[in-house]
Amino acid sequence: MHVKIAQDQAVQVPQKGRDKTTTPPHVVIVGGGFGGLQAAKALRRVPVRVTLIDYNNFHLFQPMLYQVATGGLAPSDITAPLRAVLRKQRNTEVLMAEVTGIDTREQLVYMDKQTLHYDYLILATGSSNNYFGHPQWEHLAPGMKSADDALTIRRMVFSAFEEAEREADPTQKCALLTFVLVGGGPTGVELAGNIAELAHHALEGDFRCIDPGMARIVLVQGPKHILPGFPPSLVHRATKELQRMGVEVRTGTHVKDVTESGVMIGDEHFPAKNVIWTAGVKASPASKWLQAEADNHSRVKVLPDLTVPGCANVFVIGDTASLEQNGKPLPGLAPVAMQEGEYAASVIADAIEGKKIQKPFHYFDKGTMATVGHSYGIVDVGPFHFDGMFAWLLWLLVHIMFLIGFRNRIIVMLQYAWTYITYQRGAQIILPSDAIHNPRK
Amino acid sequence: MHVKIAQDQAVQVPQKGRDKTTTPPHVVIVGGGFGGLQAAKALRRVPVRVTLIDYNNFHLFQPMLYQVATGGLAPSDITAPLRAVLRKQRNTEVLMAEVTGIDTREQLVYMDKQTLHYDYLILATGSSNNYFGHPQWEHLAPGMKSADDALTIRRMVFSAFEEAEREADPTQKCALLTFVLVGGGPTGVELAGNIAELAHHALEGDFRCIDPGMARIVLVQGPKHILPGFPPSLVHRATKELQRMGVEVRTGTHVKDVTESGVMIGDEHFPAKNVIWTAGVKASPASKWLQAEADNHSRVKVLPDLTVPGCANVFVIGDTASLEQNGKPLPGLAPVAMQEGEYAASVIADAIEGKKIQKPFHYFDKGTMATVGHSYGIVDVGPFHFDGMFAWLLWLLVHIMFLIGFRNRIIVMLQYAWTYITYQRGAQIILPSDAIHNPRK
Repeated sequence: MHVKIAQDQAVQVPQKGRDKTTTPPHVVIVGGGFGGLQAAKALRRVPVRVTLIDYNNFHLFQPMLYQVATGGLAPSDITAPLRAVLRKQRNTEVLMAEVTGIDTREQLVYMDKQTLHYDYLILATGSSNNYFGHPQWEHLAPGMKSADDALTIRRMVFSAFEEAEREADPTQKCALLTFVLVGGGPTGVELAGNIAELAHHALEGDFRCIDPGMARIVLVQGPKHILPGFPPSLVHRATKELQRMGVEVRTGTHVKDVTESGVMIGDEHFPAKNVIWTAGVKASPASKWLQAEADNHSRVKVLPDLTVPGCANVFVIGDTASLEQNGKPLPGLAPVAMQEGEYAASVIADAIEGKKIQKPFHYFDKGTMATVGHSYGIVDVGPFHFDGMFAWLLWLLVHIMFLIGFRNRIIVMLQYAWTYITYQRGAQIILPSDAIHNPRK
Repeated sequence: MHVKIAQDQAVQVPQKGRDKTTTPPHVVIVGGGFGGLQAAKALRRVPVRVTLIDYNNFHLFQPMLYQVATGGLAPSDITAPLRAVLRKQRNTEVLMAEVTGIDTREQLVYMDKQTLHYDYLILATGSSNNYFGHPQWEHLAPGMKSADDALTIRRMVFSAFEEAEREADPTQKCALLTFVLVGGGPTGVELAGNIAELAHHALEGDFRCIDPGMARIVLVQGPKHILPGFPPSLVHRATKELQRMGVEVRTGTHVKDVTESGVMIGDEHFPAKNVIWTAGVKASPASKWLQAEADNHSRVKVLPDLTVPGCANVFVIGDTASLEQNGKPLPGLAPVAMQEGEYAASVIADAIEGKKIQKPFHYFDKGTMATVGHSYGIVDVGPFHFDGMFAWLLWLLVHIMFLIGFRNRIIVMLQYAWTYITYQRGAQIILPSDAIHNPRK
C-alpha cells in the first residue's frame, strides 16, 4: 500500500473483524455516480450496513453537463445531494471524504483523517480526462468530466467573447473567437453544436465590436468518423447537421500539440485561445489502490462477476472497470454503470443469503442516443435509427426521466423549453468574478 | 492620479475632445448594479452614446442573495447578463472590465488594458464589506455583497455540517455547528433565519452521526435592536420569530475579535467555525479615484444634484454616494440607487437639451420590507406595518416583480414554492469540489 496512516489521525478507529452475531456486514461504496448510487439503492432491503463515500456532496447527472458548460443550466439543476437521495434508506450513511488508498488484505479503506473496515467493497470511482502522456495540456485544454470542469469551460467560453470585444488586434480577436473541440464523441459533438448555437443565436446582437457569428468552431476527431458506435447513416447526417450549424468537422487527424497560442492539428496550426478536451478518458487510480491488472485506460480488468481477481469481495464497476462482452469492451455509459451497480448489489445480497451460483454480468443494451444542437438529435435503438427533431425530443424526455428529483425535472424541462423558444440561455454568468483575466482559473 | 497608463497598452486610444457636429456626448457608467443599470436604461432615448462598465458580465439581484448562500437558488437564477438586458438599446455598449482610476481634468476612465474619454460620468460602484479596521477578519468571516461571497458562504455552511458529521471530538463538533452572524440588518436576519430553517428542517434526517438541529445560530448586533429603521413593534415581533426559530439574538454587544477558533463577543468567547459578516459596508474606492471628500464609510459626499463638488459632469449614485435628506443620510437600498440613477440620467438629458434648472434629488420612500424565515416577513409601508405570512408573500411578490427576466421570475417563483412546500432546497451543492478541506476557498 502506498498510503500510510498515523493511528492518531484515524478519527474513526477501523473496525477489524466484526461481531457476526450483532453487526450486519459492512458494504463500502466509493463513488456516488451512476454505478455507485445504483448499487447503494439496490442494497436498501439487504441486511447490510452501507457507507457511500464521495468527494462531492452530490450526484452529478453528467449527460446534461454540456448545458452547464454552455450557460443553459446551473450546476444545481443537474445535481442531487447524495444525503437527500439516500435520506430514507436507514441502513446507509454518506461520507463526504477523499479516499486515498485501499488495503485488500486487512479490508480497509483509507481516507483523509479516517479509515473504514469493509466486508464488501464496490469501487465506482469513474474516470478522468486522458491527455495521452501530455499532462501539460490539461490546464490549456480543460476536459468535461465534473461540475468544476463544466464551470471552467463556461468561464472560458463567455470570457472569450468578452475579451474579443475589447481586443484591438485582429489576429488575437480571431484566436479568441476560435474554439477547438478535441474529440468527436457525444460530449464533443454536444459542445460543438451548442457553442455554434451560442455564437449564431444566443449572443446575436449582444456585442458592438465583434459579431459572435464570426466564431470559428472546429471539431477534431482522430478516427475516420465522429460519434463512434452509431450507425454510419446517422453519423453522416449528424456530421451534415453540425456543418450546417457552422462547425468545421475534421476527422482522421490528431492533435500534435497544444500551446497558449493554439493547437497543432496534423500539420496545420490553428491559432485558438479556447481548446476543450473530450478526446479520451482514463480510469481513476483504483487499479493502483488495488495493485490490480489494468487495461491501457487504467481500468481494472474484472472477472465476469465484476470482482477483482483474487478479491472475491471487491467489485469494480462503471468507467473504472474493464470488461468485454461478445469480444468488445463495454462502453463507458451510464446504463452500463447502473446495471453493473445493480448486479454487484445482487451478488452481495446472494452471498449474504448463502446462495453461491450467480450468472455472470450481462449488459442489456437498450440503445444509444445523442443530441447535437438546438433541436436535433440521433437515436439508435435496436432496429430503429432516426434523427432530427423527434429524436431530440426523445433524448430530452428520456434524460429528464432519469434526472433525480421532481424539482430538477421541472426546472430542467422549463429551461430547455425556454432555450428552445427564445434561443436564450439562463446561466451565461462568469464566476468567480476575478476570472476575467484568467478564464481558466 | 495614482494610475499611470502606458500608451501602448491602451488598446482603444482615448478620444480626447469629440467632434461636436457628428459624435453624440459620451456617458460612461461604472457599475451595473441597481443604480448604474437604471441610469443606462433611462438614457435609452437620449441622444448620447452610453458605455456601461462592470467587473462582472451580469447584474445581480442582491435582495435574494441570501437564498444563494443557503442553497435555495443558483446564482444564475438571480442574475441577468448585462449584454442581454441592454441588447436592444442601440446607443449603449457594455464593457466587462475593471476600472482602475479616473482623471476628472482630462475626463478619462482608466481600465485594465484600455482608457475611455467621457463627457458625463456616473459612478455606481456600490459597496464592499466593512471590517472597521480589522482586515485580517475578512478571510475568517466572509461578507455577503457579491455572488462570489454568497457561494463562499454556501460552501462554508454545507461543509460545516459535512465536517461535523466526520468529527469525533465533541468540542470541535460543536464549533463546526456554531454559526455566528455579525450584524442584525436585513441580510443578517435573513441569513440567521434561513440557516436555522436549514438546520431544523431541510437537513433533518440527512446525517447519521450528528443532529443538524443541534446547530447553534447566534445573531450579534451592536445597537440595542435588530433591523434598524423598522418600527419597534415589528422589530419586537421579528426578534420573537427569530428566537422561535432557534436563533440566539444578542443585541447591544460588539465583536471584539475573530480567530480561527471562534469569536469574542463582548467579554464572551464563542467557539465557532462559521462566522459571517454583515455588520457594515464601505463604499468602493470612488472617492479615492476622484480625490473627493468622503464620509466615514468612504462614500463620496455629493451635492443635491448628485454631482461631485467641482465636477458638474461627474455623478455618484447608490451605495457609493453620501447624501442627507431631512437631516438623515439616505440608506443603502436598491430603490434609493434606482431613483438616483433615474435622476442622474434626467439631469444629463436636460443638460444636453440646454435646460439648466433642475430640482435637487428627492428620494421617494415607498416603504421597506424584510423576510425572516420560511414564511415570515415584515412590511412597513406608510401608515401600514404588519408581519407574518402575508407580509412574507408580499415581500416575495414585490421582489419577483423587480427581478429582471421572465425566465428568472418563473424559476425563482417555482423554487420558493418548492422550498415552501417541501422545506427542501435545490442548490445544496459544495463547489468547487476541492473546497472540503478549505471551505473558505
